[in-house]
Amino acid sequence: MSVVRADLEGATNRAGAVRREVDEPRSPVVRFGADKPLRLDANVSLSPFQIAYMTYGTLNASKSNAILVCHALSGDQYVFGEHPATGKPGWWETMVGPGKPIDTDRFFVICPNVLGGCMGTTGPASRNPATGEPYGLSLPVITIRDTVRAQAMLLDHLGIESLFCVTGGSMGAMQALQWAVSYPARVFAALPLAGAARHSAQNIAFHEVGRQAIMADPEWRDGHYLLDGTIPRRGLAVARMAAHITYLSDAALHRKFGRKLQDRETWTFGFDADFQVESYLRHQGSMFVERFDANSYLYITRAMDYFDLAADYGGVLANAFKGAKARFCVVSFTSDWLFPTADARAIVHALNAAAAPVSFAEIETDKGHDAFLLEEPELFDIVRGFLEGAARARGLPAAKG
Amino acid sequence: MSVVRADLEGATNRAGAVRREVDEPRSPVVRFGADKPLRLDANVSLSPFQIAYMTYGTLNASKSNAILVCHALSGDQYVFGEHPATGKPGWWETMVGPGKPIDTDRFFVICPNVLGGCMGTTGPASRNPATGEPYGLSLPVITIRDTVRAQAMLLDHLGIESLFCVTGGSMGAMQALQWAVSYPARVFAALPLAGAARHSAQNIAFHEVGRQAIMADPEWRDGHYLLDGTIPRRGLAVARMAAHITYLSDAALHRKFGRKLQDRETWTFGFDADFQVESYLRHQGSMFVERFDANSYLYITRAMDYFDLAADYGGVLANAFKGAKARFCVVSFTSDWLFPTADARAIVHALNAAAAPVSFAEIETDKGHDAFLLEEPELFDIVRGFLEGAARARGLPAAKG
Repeated sequence: MSVVRADLEGATNRAGAVRREVDEPRSPVVRFGADKPLRLDANVSLSPFQIAYMTYGTLNASKSNAILVCHALSGDQYVFGEHPATGKPGWWETMVGPGKPIDTDRFFVICPNVLGGCMGTTGPASRNPATGEPYGLSLPVITIRDTVRAQAMLLDHLGIESLFCVTGGSMGAMQALQWAVSYPARVFAALPLAGAARHSAQNIAFHEVGRQAIMADPEWRDGHYLLDGTIPRRGLAVARMAAHITYLSDAALHRKFGRKLQDRETWTFGFDADFQVESYLRHQGSMFVERFDANSYLYITRAMDYFDLAADYGGVLANAFKGAKARFCVVSFTSDWLFPTADARAIVHALNAAAAPVSFAEIETDKGHDAFLLEEPELFDIVRGFLEGAARARGLPAAKG
Repeated sequence: MSVVRADLEGATNRAGAVRREVDEPRSPVVRFGADKPLRLDANVSLSPFQIAYMTYGTLNASKSNAILVCHALSGDQYVFGEHPATGKPGWWETMVGPGKPIDTDRFFVICPNVLGGCMGTTGPASRNPATGEPYGLSLPVITIRDTVRAQAMLLDHLGIESLFCVTGGSMGAMQALQWAVSYPARVFAALPLAGAARHSAQNIAFHEVGRQAIMADPEWRDGHYLLDGTIPRRGLAVARMAAHITYLSDAALHRKFGRKLQDRETWTFGFDADFQVESYLRHQGSMFVERFDANSYLYITRAMDYFDLAADYGGVLANAFKGAKARFCVVSFTSDWLFPTADARAIVHALNAAAAPVSFAEIETDKGHDAFLLEEPELFDIVRGFLEGAARARGLPAAKG
């Protein structure tokens, strides 16, 4: 298979291990054949396609305790436990697990890899069955709504009619909101964290910088790099570095690094990573390249750019929520400048206008956008409280003392 | 001369025109020979070297009306009037000129191109007289203090002992502050705009992204691109795009572009510039490449990263200002997140602690960091008022009218 061959030639062993996950993930995968095409917003159908996903905990007899966890741009289905390719912990171990706020002793957690991803769900690195080669840019551009539509097919496959809750941070919040709008009868509660109902001009701008960095790398080869046995490492690393700054905050960077030097007493008067913050960013860039596909980065950022929940409703967000039946809890973080509190308030105001039940919390922290992934006791309390109230309303057993 | 040859082969005519400015600028230039080496913070001497500069207005008989205007990262000596290479207006036509807040009918304005620049002052694109080839990375890394030291030599050459005022925005503010500290007896008034006494971790991080984008471009050729007849256009464009976002604000981008599409009715479901903000950024990137040298970008960003006025004073900024004799006016802009008001306040607090006369204004605007370059009536009033008070104290004639 050309994908694997290309990798083993062009990348490190770890990147090769990750690459093998693209078509044959170690997680469960459901394959939808020609009888079940996925209709895309781009006005074409994707068929066949597959969704890789993980589940944690046990689905109860009435199938009423399922929580769909939606991952962010660079996440995947491995919410907790060792990641099969990188060996690192899952991306949301702070939040999800036995006894955690999203308690897998009580709830059945499902996390699918998004459409366009590179960990087993169909994406640009996946083998196109029609050609036997990776899709590359021949994969249609997908949207958040497409991803949610595919997730609904996964739930059908799992026999889950109605979600107890759908949650996620950042792009995960976009999916949670889209779920409540696209499938109102299937969502009991929605918990979007650090998200927005549409991507802002500044965020589109940062994404465009990342895409241009990737496409500027000659090893990108107009998207054909897997066929050519190359990887646009440097471009993808630059994209990740730029994005990573936006996930933190000025205050957090000052607290963590300030102007401290990296393993040296004085400046070198050169272009090495004199400062710790430079060294840290370079590390983030090079680690990312080992586990992520550059074309996936293009597709997923594009899906976020296109996200605008109000667009189909005359630009009036409240109208998008008119049919929603879920109870909502919206959370933002004071130092998040990627999805600032103003974005969360816009969601809350629209939900209020649509007479939907909603609670809202802005959490004081200097950790920036990434706060939803980190140790934030106030966030944990809010999530526990919201899920407890929703569980009571749904008739689920109370949490054990 | 190899510089010109490389350009004519590898770049557009406009880039070639700009490149010719590197060694033989159309502006005045002062060349310092072997008898006047420039001592650098890197503990080496630069000799020979040259400074290209423009002057506007007339120096009075007592040589007491000189204002040194210091430019920012991507600026040059062409403050107003048509730029000799790009044909565009000067970078500070809003502020400087006859009847403008910095009134060239009253004041003698001097603006030198910074050390490391590419418009006639010695920088990495300049011809190294010892080899006949461009310096590239063989030029020592320079600092803001080095640039100020070179500017002092320029003033000596012009016979100006004492500046009436030193001003500039962003990196220009860094130079203004450094002047007041390095040459207290030579600065009567200092007017730093949108600046800081040290570069923050987040700003170093953004600079590192830009440098990595340039160095990731194979056409950079380890800094030897001029010799090889190439230009790292794509890397430099990505660097500029990332930086440009930081010069604006979320609100300004929303107001100017929002989610408006560029010359199309609907999304293309592709990676073209669907959104106006993408098209705008790409334009900014490609325009910059026509007029700026990639290695200069490395050197000047590094100089900013290294800037930390308190470092030589045990980390206590007030001690840096202890010997300062200037009167200060410090200005920040509410939506500037690159040099936020907190940075300005830190300067003001230190000046207060050093018992230096200082006034401070935070101007309400959504225009972000670039506000200092734009039409900002409140800024103009502040600059006029500060200069008027200083002129009176200096015994200069009052403004006409």
